[in-house]
Amino acid sequence: MNKKINLENLRKNKNVTLRPVSTGLEKILYKPIKVLDKGFIRVVDYMGNDSSIVQAARVSYGKGTKKKNQDIGLIRYLLRHRHTTPFEMCEIKLHVKLPIFIARQWIRHRTANVNEYSARYSILEDEFYIPKKQHLSSQSNVNKQGRADELDDMNAREVLKRLKQDAIKCYEDYSWMLNDKENEHYDKKRPSVAREIARINLTLNTYTEWYWKIDLHNFMHFINLRADYHSQYEIREYGKKLLLILKNWTPITFKAYMSYRQNSVELSEEALEVIKNRLKGKKVKFENSSLSKREWDDLMNTFT
Amino acid sequence: MNKKINLENLRKNKNVTLRPVSTGLEKILYKPIKVLDKGFIRVVDYMGNDSSIVQAARVSYGKGTKKKNQDIGLIRYLLRHRHTTPFEMCEIKLHVKLPIFIARQWIRHRTANVNEYSARYSILEDEFYIPKKQHLSSQSNVNKQGRADELDDMNAREVLKRLKQDAIKCYEDYSWMLNDKENEHYDKKRPSVAREIARINLTLNTYTEWYWKIDLHNFMHFINLRADYHSQYEIREYGKKLLLILKNWTPITFKAYMSYRQNSVELSEEALEVIKNRLKGKKVKFENSSLSKREWDDLMNTFT
Amino acid sequence: MNKKINLENLRKNKNVTLRPVSTGLEKILYKPIKVLDKGFIRVVDYMGNDSSIVQAARVSYGKGTKKKNQDIGLIRYLLRHRHTTPFEMCEIKLHVKLPIFIARQWIRHRTANVNEYSARYSILEDEFYIPKKQHLSSQSNVNKQGRADELDDMNAREVLKRLKQDAIKCYEDYSWMLNDKENEHYDKKRPSVAREIARINLTLNTYTEWYWKIDLHNFMHFINLRADYHSQYEIREYGKKLLLILKNWTPITFKAYMSYRQNSVELSEEALEVIKNRLKGKKVKFENSSLSKREWDDLMNTFT
Amino acid sequence: MNKKINLENLRKNKNVTLRPVSTGLEKILYKPIKVLDKGFIRVVDYMGNDSSIVQAARVSYGKGTKKKNQDIGLIRYLLRHRHTTPFEMCEIKLHVKLPIFIARQWIRHRTANVNEYSARYSILEDEFYIPKKQHLSSQSNVNKQGRADELDDMNAREVLKRLKQDAIKCYEDYSWMLNDKENEHYDKKRPSVAREIARINLTLNTYTEWYWKIDLHNFMHFINLRADYHSQYEIREYGKKLLLILKNWTPITFKAYMSYRQNSVELSEEALEVIKNRLKGKKVKFENSSLSKREWDDLMNTFT
Repeated sequence: MNKKINLENLRKNKNVTLRPVSTGLEKILYKPIKVLDKGFIRVVDYMGNDSSIVQAARVSYGKGTKKKNQDIGLIRYLLRHRHTTPFEMCEIKLHVKLPIFIARQWIRHRTANVNEYSARYSILEDEFYIPKKQHLSSQSNVNKQGRADELDDMNAREVLKRLKQDAIKCYEDYSWMLNDKENEHYDKKRPSVAREIARINLTLNTYTEWYWKIDLHNFMHFINLRADYHSQYEIREYGKKLLLILKNWTPITFKAYMSYRQNSVELSEEALEVIKNRLKGKKVKFENSSLSKREWDDLMNTFT
Repeated sequence: MNKKINLENLRKNKNVTLRPVSTGLEKILYKPIKVLDKGFIRVVDYMGNDSSIVQAARVSYGKGTKKKNQDIGLIRYLLRHRHTTPFEMCEIKLHVKLPIFIARQWIRHRTANVNEYSARYSILEDEFYIPKKQHLSSQSNVNKQGRADELDDMNAREVLKRLKQDAIKCYEDYSWMLNDKENEHYDKKRPSVAREIARINLTLNTYTEWYWKIDLHNFMHFINLRADYHSQYEIREYGKKLLLILKNWTPITFKAYMSYRQNSVELSEEALEVIKNRLKGKKVKFENSSLSKREWDDLMNTFT
Repeated sequence: MNKKINLENLRKNKNVTLRPVSTGLEKILYKPIKVLDKGFIRVVDYMGNDSSIVQAARVSYGKGTKKKNQDIGLIRYLLRHRHTTPFEMCEIKLHVKLPIFIARQWIRHRTANVNEYSARYSILEDEFYIPKKQHLSSQSNVNKQGRADELDDMNAREVLKRLKQDAIKCYEDYSWMLNDKENEHYDKKRPSVAREIARINLTLNTYTEWYWKIDLHNFMHFINLRADYHSQYEIREYGKKLLLILKNWTPITFKAYMSYRQNSVELSEEALEVIKNRLKGKKVKFENSSLSKREWDDLMNTFT
Repeated sequence: MNKKINLENLRKNKNVTLRPVSTGLEKILYKPIKVLDKGFIRVVDYMGNDSSIVQAARVSYGKGTKKKNQDIGLIRYLLRHRHTTPFEMCEIKLHVKLPIFIARQWIRHRTANVNEYSARYSILEDEFYIPKKQHLSSQSNVNKQGRADELDDMNAREVLKRLKQDAIKCYEDYSWMLNDKENEHYDKKRPSVAREIARINLTLNTYTEWYWKIDLHNFMHFINLRADYHSQYEIREYGKKLLLILKNWTPITFKAYMSYRQNSVELSEEALEVIKNRLKGKKVKFENSSLSKREWDDLMNTFT
């Protein structure tokens, strides 16, 4: 797969269309955006832009498109009130290269279309995700699914050595089993083991690739979950690039998204009560709130 | 909603894009295709073409695009083996005007996005579907959800008279309740009843409108169900136009669809047994088949 | 459909099962809960209870069931952090009778299974929703899809008269067209018009029925949208009964739902800024906030 | 996770319910059904039985339950005509233990609910899928994603040796990185690497577990795809057990499924033409058919 060549070619094909265009996306179309050590995301197609959302919403209201700052107001209104259907009217298609353990988290979002590189049919390359030293951390004791402190240099080196060595050894045996005719080490006296069997020997940090298509509403939902600090560092890195793509695609929606999703907060009935009382000048302490210790701490962090 | 003006304007906006284009769809983009007496379908946006399917499939196989007749072979192969994901990589968005009773059948397909004209917010126009005389039929006794013979002229006239008269009366009272300021009969001494209440008085043949977005795989599935003779005549009329749109959008996929879906047949284990035996020269009659009478008749119809 | 007889019979069938049971739902199983003038909701089947959520969550964590108040803590934690999958592990099936205009709103929730009474196949009864006088309101000028003041008595009577009269007339013509053999007015000299045609003459307040099945996560999402004050009064009435069913089904989840969904609030980035500043003792007025007038008013309402 | 103890306990809890019961499923509830070397499937909950399908369908037709052989006829009719909604009214929940490479295929079915054991939160056990010698095959040249001949003994031994050795080595390093306090080799001078990092070193044949919930319609669709000979042997083994569960759950539906799905065939327009001509006594050869070589061979295989 010589992607770079394909890429250059595709950016040469200028077409005329009557469809709406996103100028921000046209600039980055087909260009791979690097993620982690060997991964990437590249936009390969899209449908609609900010005006498509307005147009779809105005069908509901029976009115045509208006001035730009009315459009901004409408998009903010729709996002605020979770009127999701107009955002579903835009669609994006990405080519993503990512380690299998991230692909397993990613695929949990069901409202998307996926075409993955098939290791039953084709041969995977010897590419594995190896973290940078600064991303190797000890297990958190507080958050059972999180990371705590960075490892010291000696331990970090040892971890990296083992990760690399195991991935390479597993790949070598995968390759040995495949015994592919086009491989330089091909041994015609040995059989070629079925690809669908050989691949079970690979490690979870092996890179895979897929085409992934999703509508704008679900795209924002995905980013919101995956750019969140509860997410694993590695998928968050992809989340950040998706946020960048969102900004290029639909700049008005992007701003509204930042206000009402990314940087918004949700207060439970009990948390709301605490804040209300404080605004009235009452002293409220953890002991006389109805919150758990963790919720209290989160609330205090939010408001300071 | 002065759609005609909007329409002309939109066809004037030629844009340059790096995305793949469907020449067949560009020709009909934004143009309403008439359906029934007052309905229409018009394509308002799309993503992808035949080559996008091939491209997505080749990601799975790790290979780039090839020659045209290999592409045809691949698309036929994918459709035949129900490898649906590459077809999900294309998307289409339609603006549809249709009677409410059809909208109720249409919406049952869940894998699509919809933005409907809201009668809570806006005022519906006095447009109702009135069948042509030749589409008025008596209730079938064989097929409990079907039509039998055409009505005779006298009865047909009477039916049409009642349909029209009731729709008009209901609309008049709807309009009376709304008592809208912009209406020529506005009476400022009377209140304007809430739109969300007044609309409950309308009949099921009142026209509504929506934006409807769906991927190519589900689009074909929808057409297959709705262009089928078991479907009600009125939705079948929409189905036929969708088939035409499919032909414009992805001509290679269209042909494969005709072979493997529209004009294909499915044989149950028992029906297969009958045909196998006949091919071997054995006489098989209904009595010694394991089929129900209806299945037997269907099978005989298929093979003669 | 003689539902009352069926109902009594079904409550007599006591079965032994190894499955978990919801004692609250067993008490109301098959019993219709009245909604509006002629509608109802009745639970016809369900799967799982509060402990099923805990059990599913603990699969993720690799641990078995614990003490009751740890279960409460876990369920609250899951709901707060929008860990939705354990709630998807419970399912409920309802039999609902509702006017068609409500059915049209209801069906927009796609993550559910539906089996509706077919008016292509069967004959609908002469049952229409007629609002009570106190629910007839004028159109709101502030909220374009809302209701304002109650109508005065004279106008209310006139509206009700027209609603009733039109529904009855449309039903009479529907019935006349059907000319059904089992109807007392059957005229054997006239044809029976196909049911799928005749029904298009009915008004949108005609009652229909369906079976509706949904998982607990989506059930709460549905309630949250439909029990909301932005919803039309009529569907809100159904929403309230669903909330009651939730309380019977999974009492622990119900309480968590009230804290984190029903009575929670969401603050945008800009609204959060206002509250933070006020807590610090700063004066913040609408003019120096970044909120729209409507958002400001909503925020002030929330915190007083 | 001491599943056996849990299991025995759960089968002791007999509850009384007014819900319909599947006697076939009650017999196997909570009992693990062994698959492959270390996997299993066990039914943990369900909703509905054959009569629930009939009941839901009869809502559409406005009629109550009838005699048993009318029920059989109705279920066969529904399945034959792909009236899928009544089958969506039943639901099943399974606890499955399966290798990760199978989990990756399985999860592609989006219309299901999943709760997977989290290796970010918990520690995976040292359990890997190692094929039996007779399931080790060479790569097929005909079917690019299939298996051909069984490996000879010497090569098979070598493959198994490498699969085992690599899985064990990767697990040892995983365990070394985790350096878990409860492990006998715990070294308090070394840090415990975050679980979410350490797990990326595991091989794709490592076993995972999940709860999986799906409705009957989609369950049959899943079985149909996965019990098919195009599927990889390992997932087919799971498919076969699911078929067995289907037989226990809804015996009438199971039989209809065998006739209309599992053992049915689909003929394309062109294939139908060939058979029609042969039935008329015409000689049709590959050369004068419009089929590809592969389609022709498939067709000949089907009818001999």
